[in-house]
Amino acid sequence: MTLVIRSVDEVRRFISERRSQGKTVGLVPTMGYLHRGHMSLVERCLEENDVTVVSLFVNPIQFGPGEDLDRYPRDEERDLSLLQDAGVDVLFAPEADEMYRPSHSTYVDEAAISFPLCGGSRPGHFRGVCTVVLKLFNVLLPDRAYFGMKDYQQLQVINRMVRDLNVPVEVRPCPIVREADGLALSSRNVYLSEDERRSALFLSKSLSAAKDAFDGGERSAFALADLVWSVLAEGEGLTPEYVEVRDAADLSEVADITGPVVVALAVRAGSTRLIDNVVLGE
Amino acid sequence: MTLVIRSVDEVRRFISERRSQGKTVGLVPTMGYLHRGHMSLVERCLEENDVTVVSLFVNPIQFGPGEDLDRYPRDEERDLSLLQDAGVDVLFAPEADEMYRPSHSTYVDEAAISFPLCGGSRPGHFRGVCTVVLKLFNVLLPDRAYFGMKDYQQLQVINRMVRDLNVPVEVRPCPIVREADGLALSSRNVYLSEDERRSALFLSKSLSAAKDAFDGGERSAFALADLVWSVLAEGEGLTPEYVEVRDAADLSEVADITGPVVVALAVRAGSTRLIDNVVLGE
Repeated sequence: MTLVIRSVDEVRRFISERRSQGKTVGLVPTMGYLHRGHMSLVERCLEENDVTVVSLFVNPIQFGPGEDLDRYPRDEERDLSLLQDAGVDVLFAPEADEMYRPSHSTYVDEAAISFPLCGGSRPGHFRGVCTVVLKLFNVLLPDRAYFGMKDYQQLQVINRMVRDLNVPVEVRPCPIVREADGLALSSRNVYLSEDERRSALFLSKSLSAAKDAFDGGERSAFALADLVWSVLAEGEGLTPEYVEVRDAADLSEVADITGPVVVALAVRAGSTRLIDNVVLGE
Repeated sequence: MTLVIRSVDEVRRFISERRSQGKTVGLVPTMGYLHRGHMSLVERCLEENDVTVVSLFVNPIQFGPGEDLDRYPRDEERDLSLLQDAGVDVLFAPEADEMYRPSHSTYVDEAAISFPLCGGSRPGHFRGVCTVVLKLFNVLLPDRAYFGMKDYQQLQVINRMVRDLNVPVEVRPCPIVREADGLALSSRNVYLSEDERRSALFLSKSLSAAKDAFDGGERSAFALADLVWSVLAEGEGLTPEYVEVRDAADLSEVADITGPVVVALAVRAGSTRLIDNVVLGE
């Protein structure tokens, strides 16, 4: 039986009671509209913790003007039934005004890893992410929190925040889950028309090409990025926003690849913004 | 016996052991060079918690260029002996590189209450304060933390941060401690020459005058500020930086006083910057 809790005070009481019984707590933060990617995090959280909390909160402050906050897909009933079937203990689903008062004025800023890639086109996005994740950590006091590697930059920004602010939570990254044809699962995939869905396949194809080239010995970041661009160019109606080969940990620029790197990209298919990545050389 | 701990990992082990025994933990964050003001916080912390931790950390990121970071007064031996006599459990005194790695890139920004008063002349100061206080909270996981009301704006910035980020710590404000002649205790008072020390008395005198006027029925913020300015003008060699009458909770501007206000001031006596305040109408 999954308990649905909407109030900070109530979920705090629930968690504090469990913790006083010596139980460990795991958190899977989500914006809902759950897919198998989310559920892989949930499964892992259930395995590794006594109590599993999934948060569902479409965080307004991580959306910029003109972004898709208002049309972000929602289906709490379906989400709840998935979590119920999985055996999740709590769905924490606060309203926006439970998380942010009108006079809210405190933000968490990560100022290095947030800067490149998605940081360029989404100013303020990672500030919103850091702020809400820290709030969720402070409310739910999890021992472990689970983040998908599809949002690779988000994962590394949160790792840095946790390190820098001494946040007492262990961040556990979980691998990207893909459709059989390679498309990385995303709640935003529902926006795609049939044509866009077909073109979107070139995202994972381009990353596979980069991986093959890397495995074949290519160590030039420029050559890999160039290869990704050329494969993306085959996808009709795709508008790449960036393709970057960066240090896998701090997202600093890389020329000759000597350690782990991430090949990360953001692309528009029609009006839908999609991201994907692959880590090489781990 | 006060344990001196310099490492984050070690103090975490100590605290986690005490917490697992069901003990409550109180924190008094300081920059050292302790005086009776600090010790009043320590006494209260000892009374209200099973374990009392005093942190001593001169936080580099809350000092601006040209401020007194390098000459900030330090005497850890004397501080330790005072804490020892008081019965404090732990002195947490990390080096700067234990708190900040070279690649540190995450900061906590409070963007409303930090803005006026000291925020005007000390850009980045409260960002530094919020960041270090949140770090100390995350390392030491106190139930309660004690802050002096002399740093009134700091107290309200921290209250706001704690509220906005759902920090699970209870902030306890403690009254200003003054010398017999009225001078508010401050580690920076050691900088004062004999003449400056004499002039500095006009800070508390000016606030007493404001309080008397308020008690006599004056409800114009402008009139009170004007009165404070006129008393400060009597102190030879004093250069007021600001005198403000503000809402006591959110430091917003006030014209006609209808609720609690703080009369706050910052003044230079020679090259030493002093602050003081009084709360009226509580």
